[in-house]
Amino acid sequence: MNRAPIGVYDSGFGGLTVLRELRRALPDAEFVYLGDAGRAPYGGRDAEVILGLAEQCVERLFSEGCRVVVVACHTVSSVALRHLQARYAGPQRERAVLGVTIPAAELAVEHASTRGGRIALVATARTVASGTFTTECHKLAPVEVIERAAPLLAPLVEEGWEDTDIAHLAVRRYVAGLDASVVVLGCTHFPLLRGAFEAALDCPVLDPAPFVAGRLVDWLARHPEFSVSEGPPRFLSTGDPDAFAAHGSRFLGAPVAGVQHVAETAGRLEPAARVVPRGQVVRA
Amino acid sequence: MNRAPIGVYDSGFGGLTVLRELRRALPDAEFVYLGDAGRAPYGGRDAEVILGLAEQCVERLFSEGCRVVVVACHTVSSVALRHLQARYAGPQRERAVLGVTIPAAELAVEHASTRGGRIALVATARTVASGTFTTECHKLAPVEVIERAAPLLAPLVEEGWEDTDIAHLAVRRYVAGLDASVVVLGCTHFPLLRGAFEAALDCPVLDPAPFVAGRLVDWLARHPEFSVSEGPPRFLSTGDPDAFAAHGSRFLGAPVAGVQHVAETAGRLEPAARVVPRGQVVRA
Repeated sequence: MNRAPIGVYDSGFGGLTVLRELRRALPDAEFVYLGDAGRAPYGGRDAEVILGLAEQCVERLFSEGCRVVVVACHTVSSVALRHLQARYAGPQRERAVLGVTIPAAELAVEHASTRGGRIALVATARTVASGTFTTECHKLAPVEVIERAAPLLAPLVEEGWEDTDIAHLAVRRYVAGLDASVVVLGCTHFPLLRGAFEAALDCPVLDPAPFVAGRLVDWLARHPEFSVSEGPPRFLSTGDPDAFAAHGSRFLGAPVAGVQHVAETAGRLEPAARVVPRGQVVRA
Repeated sequence: MNRAPIGVYDSGFGGLTVLRELRRALPDAEFVYLGDAGRAPYGGRDAEVILGLAEQCVERLFSEGCRVVVVACHTVSSVALRHLQARYAGPQRERAVLGVTIPAAELAVEHASTRGGRIALVATARTVASGTFTTECHKLAPVEVIERAAPLLAPLVEEGWEDTDIAHLAVRRYVAGLDASVVVLGCTHFPLLRGAFEAALDCPVLDPAPFVAGRLVDWLARHPEFSVSEGPPRFLSTGDPDAFAAHGSRFLGAPVAGVQHVAETAGRLEPAARVVPRGQVVRA
């Protein structure tokens, strides 16, 4: 099989914190990142809606030539991963869709089994409603797990307010009374709030992204049929490409350039100029 | 024509602050309120997406027997009102769709012409991108208008944090340096933050909702063909009906009971039990 880039899919900017770790682990690999910023946030959406959005995004990444897609978003990984795998993996294993929930659970359980105590996941409302992280932890060990929803944190980071008093107060409010021996950042936006989490908590705070990257390296070694092409990263966004370029570097820790806008056309995401209409919009 | 209830449509809970004023102005009238909380927030969405959501919501209110629908949401009023009017008003004027942008502009211009100075609208990103409020003000008078986006405030109120330090700090941050003689609350969520706005500003803060209610009373007097039925209010939500009942009373200033869940089925909103799936969702 030909070499192909690795797709990375997220509801917005947040997954760039995962891409940062993937690039550290695989510095020569070519990545195509798709952020669904025009339709974010996903965290409060119904599961069925998320499945539909995820299908479009993953299909776009396959159209870009990717054969492996990493779903960086915990919300999508928690509710839609099995669906995406069943729909797209194919009988010849010509495509693969990987998520972040199982690596996050492995990391947390590894930590709990060496130090004991209770694991807490802080995540979006939809991730928490799914209970998938707890289910995956319990497949590994009989650990105690709490999941807590923090719906405002991802929008707050998207707004660029991660270093404000507001961010610190919001994190403190969400983790108040959380009795845990380790807290897992269960949303790709939260690594930008790591300082606020550490200031508000007495226990270790884990970002699963480096562990996710290590797991991908292992997986690629076990699956040589998915050989990876080399090249600079490419970026696609359903939202404003200029905003993506401007804010994205905070998440990636490196400049973000040449963002391609994609928009929904007849149920598919296709490259399109971004049009922001002024005034009333009247459609036939 | 038969008497009919008045429909009130909003992206979530916020429009209940408008319904509160409508009920004050028309205490015997029957209202049907539809909050699209399951698909909110609208404020960062593309205009085309908002048109599609608005069509479904307005059609549901017509199916509930309404002949007049008040679009309480400033985001929908700013981008989709003309579309909804063109699509649904009908040649025999058997239906009507009314918005909040023109009343808000009338109120602001009236204020500016007696006191002078610059009008500021604080609203969602989509409302500000449309520029519709400024356009409507300029149709009335050559006033100076600034529009400022405050994307986090509606989610913050939906979270129930309107009385926290976080709310005060967020409002202060958004209105910093706003040089205006009057500030208009251009989102139905913001009346719950009125105290924070007044604390952060030296100028009057206007909630258009009472003026919108007065305008509806005038409109009904001029259009006796739209006679209004009497009865207690009914509530529909695309989100969690229990959350709607629990949080809604803060916005309505009165108990909210008997919320009917509606869900998208084949492009229409239909009454449906609310199902929150646990774990992974796999669709055929």
